[in-house]
Amino acid sequence: MKKYGISFIGAGKVAGALSRAFSDLGHRIISIVSRREENCHELVESLNSTWSSDPFFSDSTDIIVIAVPDDTIREVSNKLRCPEKTIVAHTAGSIGIDVFPSELKHTGVLYPLQTFSTGRKITFRNLPFFIEASDRNSETVLVELVDSLEAKAHFAEASSRRLLHIAAVFACNFTNHMLAASKIIAMEAGEEFSTLEPLVRETILKAFENGPVKSQTGPAVRSDIGTIEKHIELLSFSPELQQIYKEVTSSIMDLYKKKSI
Amino acid sequence: MKKYGISFIGAGKVAGALSRAFSDLGHRIISIVSRREENCHELVESLNSTWSSDPFFSDSTDIIVIAVPDDTIREVSNKLRCPEKTIVAHTAGSIGIDVFPSELKHTGVLYPLQTFSTGRKITFRNLPFFIEASDRNSETVLVELVDSLEAKAHFAEASSRRLLHIAAVFACNFTNHMLAASKIIAMEAGEEFSTLEPLVRETILKAFENGPVKSQTGPAVRSDIGTIEKHIELLSFSPELQQIYKEVTSSIMDLYKKKSI
Repeated sequence: MKKYGISFIGAGKVAGALSRAFSDLGHRIISIVSRREENCHELVESLNSTWSSDPFFSDSTDIIVIAVPDDTIREVSNKLRCPEKTIVAHTAGSIGIDVFPSELKHTGVLYPLQTFSTGRKITFRNLPFFIEASDRNSETVLVELVDSLEAKAHFAEASSRRLLHIAAVFACNFTNHMLAASKIIAMEAGEEFSTLEPLVRETILKAFENGPVKSQTGPAVRSDIGTIEKHIELLSFSPELQQIYKEVTSSIMDLYKKKSI
Repeated sequence: MKKYGISFIGAGKVAGALSRAFSDLGHRIISIVSRREENCHELVESLNSTWSSDPFFSDSTDIIVIAVPDDTIREVSNKLRCPEKTIVAHTAGSIGIDVFPSELKHTGVLYPLQTFSTGRKITFRNLPFFIEASDRNSETVLVELVDSLEAKAHFAEASSRRLLHIAAVFACNFTNHMLAASKIIAMEAGEEFSTLEPLVRETILKAFENGPVKSQTGPAVRSDIGTIEKHIELLSFSPELQQIYKEVTSSIMDLYKKKSI
């Protein structure tokens, strides 16, 4: 396995998880560029790396990974200075390769289809990374990086990746919000959220084995209006939960009405 | 382990899963009562049981499990005839023990917190069952039944159980709907739904380890209006998906606005 010199712009959740994983595999983390040292002191120490507020990169950096909020990628890449041979890649699902200024000759996207939180160790094994690159050599290097994590390199154009990012919002953020609502209601019932874990596990298993559309159960898909009305009444302790119950129920009913036509 | 004679009214998904599990453990399935034999012929055969359309139960039935749609439980229990000693229990989360006519002296609820689909074998080990009973003896027998499955007996009054049933709708049906939407969008992007599996697995793990409210990530929780607007535009191929995206996004924003006050 070829070892690379990798630098990061950004010291948030994605940069933290990726830099630790690359470092564990023997890649060298040359520098972490971020506004303030306090925010990444621990990370920099643990990686035996250096911190800088200046996005200047010397010859030892083969790849610069930009992991900053989507709307600052353009600004950051306009400011950075690096050798011409350096590959500059960002990690955003929603942003294309066209965000980079034309002065950068080797650019790419390295989008991990995962949710990152501070302090959680992510298993990169078999995780899909969506890759795009400006040239064959950059693509090869990005694929090698992904391979070194035992992750899976996928290729997608910006238009597909953007849609996939929305699919991920539904699968992750929206699913998590349903669980948050579920926990609030379970607590109102005086029950532990963990009581629901076997149900959620089977829901997910079934969705991936049989497909989620075929797997649907519950009052909405069987148009059990009596139960739905009782549920809405029982949720009167929270108008917000009532509202989201109504919206998701009507969305389920719409989907299966269509299917039965 | 004490072995019981158990009969079922209903031959649907819940009755199928429970009767097979009880039979596998050595309980005897005396009879399956349902309207038409065709619908349960295979089940009855495999259980070495008998079918009847008449809800009459002889002395050999210790427990009658009513697993029919919620709104027919009352009608069904008014019609059934059984010895006075027989325990009659239904499996509905939303219905109380008061659904039973006063002529039935031993009644209960045996609500498995799980999603059942035809053809899926359910692991009952550690699955929570919510139990309610009219008397101490009935409760003991229902707990023994749950114990025989290596499942977990929980006790909840009807009011808690009703709320818990709503929590289950969010955790299972609504979560599954988010996955269904996610699959539709992934297909639109030309990607396999299975690509999202590592992301969903981590989402669920994190929600149960750290709590779902703390675990939230994505454009809505960080009020990234630019990304949200781009997503809504990209979903223009489906007004239904646009609508549910807007609703869940605004529900997430509401929840975290509250939290930050």
